[in-house]
Amino acid sequence: MEESKVTPWEVKGDIDYSKLIKEFGLQPMNFNDLPKAFHNEILFRRGIVFAHRSFGSIVSAIENKKPFVMMTGCMPTGKFHIGHMLVAKQIIFYQSLGAKVYICVADIEAYNARGQSLEESRRIAIEEYLLNYIALGLKHENCEFYFQSDRSKDGKKADAYYRLQNLVARHVTFNEFKAVYGEITPGKIVSALLQASDMLHPQLPEFEHPLPVVVPVGIDQDPHIRLTRDIIGRINNYNNFNFKELCSTCHTFIPGLNGGKMSSSDATSYVALTDSPEEAAKKVRKYAFSGGRDTIDEHRRHGGNPDIDVSYQWLRIFEENDDLLKKVYDDYKSGSLLSGELKNLLIQKLTIFLTQHQANREKAKKVLEKYINKN
Amino acid sequence: MEESKVTPWEVKGDIDYSKLIKEFGLQPMNFNDLPKAFHNEILFRRGIVFAHRSFGSIVSAIENKKPFVMMTGCMPTGKFHIGHMLVAKQIIFYQSLGAKVYICVADIEAYNARGQSLEESRRIAIEEYLLNYIALGLKHENCEFYFQSDRSKDGKKADAYYRLQNLVARHVTFNEFKAVYGEITPGKIVSALLQASDMLHPQLPEFEHPLPVVVPVGIDQDPHIRLTRDIIGRINNYNNFNFKELCSTCHTFIPGLNGGKMSSSDATSYVALTDSPEEAAKKVRKYAFSGGRDTIDEHRRHGGNPDIDVSYQWLRIFEENDDLLKKVYDDYKSGSLLSGELKNLLIQKLTIFLTQHQANREKAKKVLEKYINKN
Repeated sequence: MEESKVTPWEVKGDIDYSKLIKEFGLQPMNFNDLPKAFHNEILFRRGIVFAHRSFGSIVSAIENKKPFVMMTGCMPTGKFHIGHMLVAKQIIFYQSLGAKVYICVADIEAYNARGQSLEESRRIAIEEYLLNYIALGLKHENCEFYFQSDRSKDGKKADAYYRLQNLVARHVTFNEFKAVYGEITPGKIVSALLQASDMLHPQLPEFEHPLPVVVPVGIDQDPHIRLTRDIIGRINNYNNFNFKELCSTCHTFIPGLNGGKMSSSDATSYVALTDSPEEAAKKVRKYAFSGGRDTIDEHRRHGGNPDIDVSYQWLRIFEENDDLLKKVYDDYKSGSLLSGELKNLLIQKLTIFLTQHQANREKAKKVLEKYINKN
Repeated sequence: MEESKVTPWEVKGDIDYSKLIKEFGLQPMNFNDLPKAFHNEILFRRGIVFAHRSFGSIVSAIENKKPFVMMTGCMPTGKFHIGHMLVAKQIIFYQSLGAKVYICVADIEAYNARGQSLEESRRIAIEEYLLNYIALGLKHENCEFYFQSDRSKDGKKADAYYRLQNLVARHVTFNEFKAVYGEITPGKIVSALLQASDMLHPQLPEFEHPLPVVVPVGIDQDPHIRLTRDIIGRINNYNNFNFKELCSTCHTFIPGLNGGKMSSSDATSYVALTDSPEEAAKKVRKYAFSGGRDTIDEHRRHGGNPDIDVSYQWLRIFEENDDLLKKVYDDYKSGSLLSGELKNLLIQKLTIFLTQHQANREKAKKVLEKYINKN
């Protein structure tokens, strides 16, 4: 087993999630404690969202029909792919439960950490992220889609958001930044401070007032959550702020086609939501790492390993029917389902999904304006 | 002669201004090249404003009646004293020449570098700075008085100001900050970046569009100017910015009563503009460092030294009449004017000034609202 490493700037090796829960001081997500609505969302039902911090506040808000916020950000670089769907599905799920949704385009971070212009970030954020969110079901009501560089038409809101970034600076040390971000530069410092404001500012009186805010992240991003949670106590003491503790959930990674990390910078590792069904099928056939045996004969006799098979992992996101999914798992494990057949099942699902999704994207283009420049 | 040191965080020793001009790469201010209007302002006439960077652009704007900006900031801590009048007089002078005046209250810097609350900064900025500026002649037309934490009611302006702060971060290194600010912290970094935006943002399209901006500073603050000037070339290249080079002037220090630095943290070093005339007279009699001889007899025989006499240095700010001032200088040097008599001349001037100024402050309180919260 390759030694694993999970930090905000590096994820490698085989990840032992229950070990990470202990290491990071997270709470395991107990599906049975969740309200009934969560039974409809496979990310929760299947344990893909596996841990949390202070999620009880969110559950309680949902049960008591109190306002809460779902906050997330996107780094507008590269293609929007299957891996990004984990967050997208959660955005839309929480919105359906009554959450106000805050979606931040991290264009300042892209400028400072990656040297990407604001114009390019804006283009990618709209074409890749927003269009796909809308096509996946994001509603424009109860949704603030904004850019870090362009927060609000309302000066009070804009001032409050950036003021918070500037005030947070007093309450963090260089060493804390280094622990979370590795090597730091002035650009990374301001991006980190702005990220803290992204997570906290929904609670400002200029926005929603103090209320529960949940940020869904991949486990590698948890240190950012932890740092922002730590800042709350410090900054509340020195100002008239009354921030409630920040809530978060952690989800597992969807593996890339080759079984490693899915990465926008390696087109053979992902299927993008704008790939044609034919292109997607070709990628799955060519690159998807198989848990099958070396020969059909061996496979029939000893069975395959669905737990490491990428097609099976991806089906967990695309096959909503639990019974069917279990049958695939069992059949593959027993050897009655061959690797090529498993790939075909995924390809079928992907074909239906991408065809429908790309039609939805065309419709989404016509309503884009409702989502942007409205804040 | 004590070894001198002039950095933004320390000023000590006897300052050789012509040496500093060379060391810092400044241009000497040639009074004879200035338009006629400058002859009316003693700070220029008497060489108190002694050096500059790119001041030709400002002269040219004035001569051609083109728009230009005078930008300055104040750190809202302690009492507004005689030393602060050098900048105040320049603000009002440039405004009379047609400049649009930007006055920034560095409340974010006070929060991050000195741990002072925004509320306290706001109170001090208004009571100590703004009221005195108005009493000294600041007009509300063509004046933006703003807080770093609260830039504008207009979201486009607020976004643009803070966006610039965030973008600048990419174009500065930690080492550059250390060279200018000494020991750095996250709080100092964001304050320095915001200060750069303070100096540059008047040129943004959301404000005045590119135009000459002059920042009058004490020589100790010149490194900030230099860093911001350096940033312009870098940031223009990466954005649709078109910043013109930043202009600045440098003025000498007015000595504190004891001959050292005038400091808000030492009440025996300054006369505040809210000190009563009696209090001021007492301070001058008790603390003002004298260039006189040890005995009246010696003084009559050998004369005093006006160049190190604090009362004479202060008279250079308060006595507008050049002939009278020259007579004081000559009489003191010849010994016909005694130290006590020189102090009395200053006390007379201070009494008239403070009485009138404090009456003006009462009137200013009634028009405060025209200056604040209007941006």
